[in-house]
Amino acid sequence: MSTISLFVTGGTLDKQYNEISGELSYSSTSVYDIIKDSRTTLNIEIKKLMLVDSLEMSQTERKLVVTNCIASKNDTIIITHGTDTMIETARDIAFENIQKTIILTGAMIPYKVQKSDSVFNLATALSFVQTLKFGVYIVMNGHYFLWNDVRKNKKLGVFENL
Amino acid sequence: MSTISLFVTGGTLDKQYNEISGELSYSSTSVYDIIKDSRTTLNIEIKKLMLVDSLEMSQTERKLVVTNCIASKNDTIIITHGTDTMIETARDIAFENIQKTIILTGAMIPYKVQKSDSVFNLATALSFVQTLKFGVYIVMNGHYFLWNDVRKNKKLGVFENL
Amino acid sequence: MSTISLFVTGGTLDKQYNEISGELSYSSTSVYDIIKDSRTTLNIEIKKLMLVDSLEMSQTERKLVVTNCIASKNDTIIITHGTDTMIETARDIAFENIQKTIILTGAMIPYKVQKSDSVFNLATALSFVQTLKFGVYIVMNGHYFLWNDVRKNKKLGVFENL
Amino acid sequence: MSTISLFVTGGTLDKQYNEISGELSYSSTSVYDIIKDSRTTLNIEIKKLMLVDSLEMSQTERKLVVTNCIASKNDTIIITHGTDTMIETARDIAFENIQKTIILTGAMIPYKVQKSDSVFNLATALSFVQTLKFGVYIVMNGHYFLWNDVRKNKKLGVFENL
Repeated sequence: MSTISLFVTGGTLDKQYNEISGELSYSSTSVYDIIKDSRTTLNIEIKKLMLVDSLEMSQTERKLVVTNCIASKNDTIIITHGTDTMIETARDIAFENIQKTIILTGAMIPYKVQKSDSVFNLATALSFVQTLKFGVYIVMNGHYFLWNDVRKNKKLGVFENL
Repeated sequence: MSTISLFVTGGTLDKQYNEISGELSYSSTSVYDIIKDSRTTLNIEIKKLMLVDSLEMSQTERKLVVTNCIASKNDTIIITHGTDTMIETARDIAFENIQKTIILTGAMIPYKVQKSDSVFNLATALSFVQTLKFGVYIVMNGHYFLWNDVRKNKKLGVFENL
Repeated sequence: MSTISLFVTGGTLDKQYNEISGELSYSSTSVYDIIKDSRTTLNIEIKKLMLVDSLEMSQTERKLVVTNCIASKNDTIIITHGTDTMIETARDIAFENIQKTIILTGAMIPYKVQKSDSVFNLATALSFVQTLKFGVYIVMNGHYFLWNDVRKNKKLGVFENL
Repeated sequence: MSTISLFVTGGTLDKQYNEISGELSYSSTSVYDIIKDSRTTLNIEIKKLMLVDSLEMSQTERKLVVTNCIASKNDTIIITHGTDTMIETARDIAFENIQKTIILTGAMIPYKVQKSDSVFNLATALSFVQTLKFGVYIVMNGHYFLWNDVRKNKKLGVFENL
């Protein structure tokens, strides 16, 4: 059984409530908990690249995501990412023509908040990555989208085809 | 976009704690809540066939699952099912040679209990059903298994290939 | 059995994650859910006065809290309130010398966020209001404090005696 | 500030779902988690005496609860206990005429199950123990009851006066 690379970059999925400041911020990733509670027997290598709001992801950080996709010895890769610039990062990765199945996913509601879509989205990414052919995809709302045929409908808070 | 049939039969996923009797029993299915909270935009037709522990599923009930698979106008079908006889029902469905993608899934921990695998498993089933070719599958622990190449490891509480 | 007035003003307890804006805001109160899930058989009259961050509570709004305390026909009153100006509102109420037991409580973590202290704090307020003599109190962190012998330790995020 | 003894005996509060057997059983107590998440600054000494269904509590075990109440150096004591024989244990404790405030509490829904009343009930016990005079009490459903003026209404699943 092959191994899946799971790169963590933050996004809404990993936002946490800071009780002292009263604001949402980052302190650690919940991806380990999600994977543990799922009882999955998949081989998954989790690597935290950063914990940032994707609106504040720098070009250096975005480049780091791309180079990790290139360097990974696994040909199935999932990236957790903020939804606001997920497609931008997908495009940068696609530009490299990497012969791997690479999926970007995230959440509209933080994992730590009730009724979060985090577990659902990560689960769908882990499934699609096993069956889709090489390419770069966005997986959200139960669908997979090719990186160049998707947009975020900011009014409805869902991803949809162009 | 095609529609996915989602047949509910009960199993651990839908077990609820009855505070008067102090026992686990069935009163309603949580599948509607799971789908709603997932924010999925997939077309899903949910149909509750029964709410039973799969160890107590009668031959009449099992037959009902099979006939619903045959009768469905959708060629992608997911069945929530208790894990103990999930493979038995899969075999009965496979015997019919239905030209559809049919997935049985369930949970080791009820949805209403902390750290349940229900959302994860249903999410993976909803993904695999979109990409796997016609056939009958078990989807558990992040994997898809052909109905005739899987067993439940009762000691570990996980599904694995033969 | 006498009736307890429960006045809702918002505060951190009722902050919700807005998935479209990505920010914390108010849409409805969770107090009804908390009371229902508690299985309490107390007589509680819930009245939503407002849903505001206590740092943004206007003098008109604060006055509304005071007049509701005066007008209530019940002599046991609980007010859910943001922690930042909870003591300020308590002082305004105390100034009126109302012959009732009046408790202000709230939360450091919103009810909708994992590991919230909302249920705990509301439960303690509902208990203390039954046994404390007339006066104005802050109930937080499992303690009751007289309104004029308490401060919020903003560094630790806990209430303590002066 | 005085210290509160918190004796754990099990009951519904601490029942957990065993995913291998598919049954409810005991493995550890959730009381530590409840206290931690509450952010209480009370001094609480937690002592696990046993983890049993109160219908199966032996006379030796019940005696152990009584002797711990007598031996405790704290004059405020809370006991988590199954609801079915909570009043029986309360009577045994009351027989000893201990000059302490002793409260028995529990839950109708296990802590690990959604919408549990565990946090609410433990919070109310922690409040009442600070203000009630010496005696033996049952605290459930937001009320405190004298040990000899309470019964469990098994049909409704609530405690009420005689």
